[in-house]
Amino acid sequence: MTHPAAFYRGDRHFAVGTMPARQPGPGEVAIDVAYVGICGTDLHVFHGNMDARVGKNRVIGHEMSGTVAEVGPDAGDFVPGERVVVRPLHPCGSCPTCKAGHAHICQNLKFLGLDTDGAMQGRWIVPAFTLHRLPEGLSLEVAALVEPLAVAVHDVRRARLKAGETVLVIGGGPIGMLIAMVAQAEGANVILSEINQNRLDMAAAMGVEGLNPREVNVAEAVHERTGGAGADVVFEVSGTQPGVDLMTDAVRARGRIVMVAIHAKKAEVDLFRFFWREVEMLGARVYEPQDYDRAIAMLAEGLPVGRLITDRYPLAEVQAAFEALDGNPTAMKTLIQIGGAA
Amino acid sequence: MTHPAAFYRGDRHFAVGTMPARQPGPGEVAIDVAYVGICGTDLHVFHGNMDARVGKNRVIGHEMSGTVAEVGPDAGDFVPGERVVVRPLHPCGSCPTCKAGHAHICQNLKFLGLDTDGAMQGRWIVPAFTLHRLPEGLSLEVAALVEPLAVAVHDVRRARLKAGETVLVIGGGPIGMLIAMVAQAEGANVILSEINQNRLDMAAAMGVEGLNPREVNVAEAVHERTGGAGADVVFEVSGTQPGVDLMTDAVRARGRIVMVAIHAKKAEVDLFRFFWREVEMLGARVYEPQDYDRAIAMLAEGLPVGRLITDRYPLAEVQAAFEALDGNPTAMKTLIQIGGAA
Repeated sequence: MTHPAAFYRGDRHFAVGTMPARQPGPGEVAIDVAYVGICGTDLHVFHGNMDARVGKNRVIGHEMSGTVAEVGPDAGDFVPGERVVVRPLHPCGSCPTCKAGHAHICQNLKFLGLDTDGAMQGRWIVPAFTLHRLPEGLSLEVAALVEPLAVAVHDVRRARLKAGETVLVIGGGPIGMLIAMVAQAEGANVILSEINQNRLDMAAAMGVEGLNPREVNVAEAVHERTGGAGADVVFEVSGTQPGVDLMTDAVRARGRIVMVAIHAKKAEVDLFRFFWREVEMLGARVYEPQDYDRAIAMLAEGLPVGRLITDRYPLAEVQAAFEALDGNPTAMKTLIQIGGAA
Repeated sequence: MTHPAAFYRGDRHFAVGTMPARQPGPGEVAIDVAYVGICGTDLHVFHGNMDARVGKNRVIGHEMSGTVAEVGPDAGDFVPGERVVVRPLHPCGSCPTCKAGHAHICQNLKFLGLDTDGAMQGRWIVPAFTLHRLPEGLSLEVAALVEPLAVAVHDVRRARLKAGETVLVIGGGPIGMLIAMVAQAEGANVILSEINQNRLDMAAAMGVEGLNPREVNVAEAVHERTGGAGADVVFEVSGTQPGVDLMTDAVRARGRIVMVAIHAKKAEVDLFRFFWREVEMLGARVYEPQDYDRAIAMLAEGLPVGRLITDRYPLAEVQAAFEALDGNPTAMKTLIQIGGAA
């Protein structure tokens, strides 16, 4: 028995082939994968930037939904047919960070779909502790957004956001957009700073107010709207130097900046502003189990994120899916449909 | 009636002259100044870097001790002869930051001794709300260190430091040294990173372990001592790029960095490390009333800071005091003695 799988082979190339079947071992569950979302990290893999980590025969994919197919020994009370998502983190359990209770940022973390094979295959075998059950009424298609939504939930939780606060989100890609929606759902007044007009239009359609920093002085606009105070919370999701400049310009005294973006090289930061206004900055990475629970609950309650799904491809067309997404100014979230489930 | 005063006249020059006497007005108290410490900020004034703010006929000085001489109307229950220190902050009370309860970093803050005349004069008239009484047994000489010690107390409080934690202090000037002592008094394991051997020797004499980053890889040493975790708390007090590099290299996952130093220009910061290890950074500036209370209590309990006072000059020799302190590798804290009190 085999099942279909997409293998990253290096140099912007995927090969669709087959993976030999195996039984789930102790503590493992086999999932029939339904949908897999393409993440910014997956695009980095496509670009060849992560070859040293993923190699050139890797099944990637970690934003997904599916149904339980087989349950291994000692893998809990899962039963075939249950609809689930995977929280793709496998911590070591023994490093100082795990021991301090922060296993999600384990110093030896294995990220499923990067450090081990991921979800872009028909049947995916994962540790049972990574599973979260889905409630009835939440479609598998929308559930493929649980993982990025859990990132946003984690980021907002790190910010200790309170209802009524003013939030500036810098960068309107999928994660920035989801942060804006979560913050708005928590009762914040949200402004999104984004240079791409298509994304600003999409934000507007989802009820999020956007400003274009190439047209408006965003920091001034934020100060005007807050009586000269500044934003209570700023999420830096752009990964750019102008974003880093804006974060310190726009934040209020004692305000919180959440560092969500991946800055591949050191950025110039206005540390004087941190000192002068007693600003706080919090790094935020991936999610903890409660962030998955909250993301699933928000989707079940109808958080209207479905609009973010702009493109869909079958697994056989994964190469075309990545090529179409790459540098596309109107695409937001692309899903790869694996199984026949809907 | 007049009293002696030292006027900063620009271009590294002080003129010692006289100030006409006046009665304290409503809400004001006149203080017979005993001792005034020279702060790094005062050296910045001396160097001409703050002329636009202080002008060229300013009495500076804000680290001080003295006794109440005269009490104006509606100035509380102070009585002549009480020994006091001044918390030299005059907030506006109406800006968004004051209204949010953070008056110590008021957006229109007047800092006594910079924005208004300060303590380098025989009799200093200040708002009564700036005064803190000194307990018996605490000498006026040591009490001149209350202000910088309150800075250190505030910095440590911002860090949410717990007993048993490992602390790295980057930079061993007076504030760095006081932070190290406060953190140690709170039960932390403290390492001081400092390039000046004289300061390392002084730290050792005060029971603070120092490392020279020109001789030792301090980040590696911190990781070795913490079983690969890193420092729970890092205080960046150096104001240098190597200090900023070290702060992110040495801090543990979910650790706290307190930004104490004044970085006059933007520094290159490893924001990826903030993201990856969910590091937190907190700006910390001056002090709140409870920091003064705590600093006074710590001195009264015998925190051995007296050794930091390396030099003493009478007011008439203020010019010589600044010239001797400027660039002096062995000086730590210079006091100007104003009155006859001891």
